[in-house]
Amino acid sequence: MTETPGTPAPRRRGRPARAAADGGPGARERIVAAARAEFAEHGYDKASIRGIARGAGVDPALVHHYFGPKEQVFAAAVEVVAAPVLEAPDIVLAGGRDEVGERLTRFFLGVWDNPVSRAPLLAVVRSAIANETAAAIFRDLLSTRLMARIADGLDIPDARLRAELAASQLVGAALLRYVIRIEPLASADVEQVVAMLAPAVQRHLTGE
Amino acid sequence: MTETPGTPAPRRRGRPARAAADGGPGARERIVAAARAEFAEHGYDKASIRGIARGAGVDPALVHHYFGPKEQVFAAAVEVVAAPVLEAPDIVLAGGRDEVGERLTRFFLGVWDNPVSRAPLLAVVRSAIANETAAAIFRDLLSTRLMARIADGLDIPDARLRAELAASQLVGAALLRYVIRIEPLASADVEQVVAMLAPAVQRHLTGE
Repeated sequence: MTETPGTPAPRRRGRPARAAADGGPGARERIVAAARAEFAEHGYDKASIRGIARGAGVDPALVHHYFGPKEQVFAAAVEVVAAPVLEAPDIVLAGGRDEVGERLTRFFLGVWDNPVSRAPLLAVVRSAIANETAAAIFRDLLSTRLMARIADGLDIPDARLRAELAASQLVGAALLRYVIRIEPLASADVEQVVAMLAPAVQRHLTGE
Repeated sequence: MTETPGTPAPRRRGRPARAAADGGPGARERIVAAARAEFAEHGYDKASIRGIARGAGVDPALVHHYFGPKEQVFAAAVEVVAAPVLEAPDIVLAGGRDEVGERLTRFFLGVWDNPVSRAPLLAVVRSAIANETAAAIFRDLLSTRLMARIADGLDIPDARLRAELAASQLVGAALLRYVIRIEPLASADVEQVVAMLAPAVQRHLTGE
C-alpha cells in the first residue's frame, strides 16, 4: 500500500516500494478484488498468494494475516462473486408459489446472461470443476447459503433434494448455453429458454 | 499400452531407444490411449504431444503424422471417451415414446455412476470447460453426433433445442452429483434420482 487516504493512486505493478503494515485503508477489499482477478486468470491451482498480494499492492504476509491460506482467500473471493446468486432464495420465497419456477429461472439466467456478472461466476465454476479444494468451498457455499435456504422455504418432502435438482437444471443449461455454447441453445432468445425451463424447475421445486 | 501382440512389454519411461518408423503394430491405438491419459492428468492446456508420444512409446513426429496438431489428438481421444454417451440416440429412439425420458436418464446416470466410464468423461468435460479449443471440439461432437441424431428422431417443433434442454438437465445433475458432490444429491440412490429427473427429461423431449 503506497497511497494515503483520499489520494487515488495509479494501478500498481510489481512489488510495492513502501507497504504499510496494515495495507492501508480498503486493503481487505483490494485483496479480495485482486484474488478474484488472480483466480479468474490462472485458475485455483496456479493462482498464488504472491500474485494476489502484488495485484492488491500489499505484502503477501498481509494476505495471510487477513484470510489465512489460499483456500480461505478463495472462499472470500467466491463469497463476493456468488453474491448475486445468493439472492436466489429471496426470489424463490417471495411472491406466489405457482410462479416460483419462472421467477428463479429468469433470475438465474439473467445473472448468466449479463457478461459483467457471468465472467467472475464462470471463473469460480471453472476452478470448482478443476480442483477438489475449490469444489469443496463452492459446495459448502451452495449447500449452506443457497440450497438449505431454498429448501427450508419449501414445505414439501425431499425439499433439499428437489432444490438441488432444480439447481442442476439451471446449472446445466448455463453450462451448455454460456460455456460450451451448443447451438441452437446458445443463441436462443433468453425468454424462450426461460419459458421452456421454468416448468421443469417448477416441477422440481413444488412437485407440479 | 506399449506392448506388441503376444509380447508383454514393460511400461516405458523416457525417450524410446529404438522406435519403429511406423510405431509398430497398434501404434495408433496406443497413441489414443496415451492421449487420454495425458489429457486426463494434465488437462488440455498442459498436455503435450511429447508427453503423449512418450506414453505411447513412439516418436512425437508419429503422433503428428497420424493425427496432426494437439486439437486433433484431443478430438480422437474424445471420440473414444465419449463412445458410451454416443449410444444415447439409439437408447432414445428405440422403444416406446412414453418412457424415452426414463430410458435416457437411466442410461446417462448409469454411465456417470460407473467410475470406470466416469473418470475419462470427467477429464474431457474438465478440459472443455477450461479451454476454448477443447470446448469447440466437445461441442461439435455433442452437436453432430448426439443432439442432431436425437432431434432427428423426435417429430416435434424445436426438437434440437428440446434435446439440448434435456441434455442440460442431465449434464447439470451429473455435475452437481459427481463433480461438485452436493448433498443429499451426491448420496441419493441412483434410482430415486432417475425417478425424479426422468419426468423433466421426458417433458423436454416430447412436450409432456
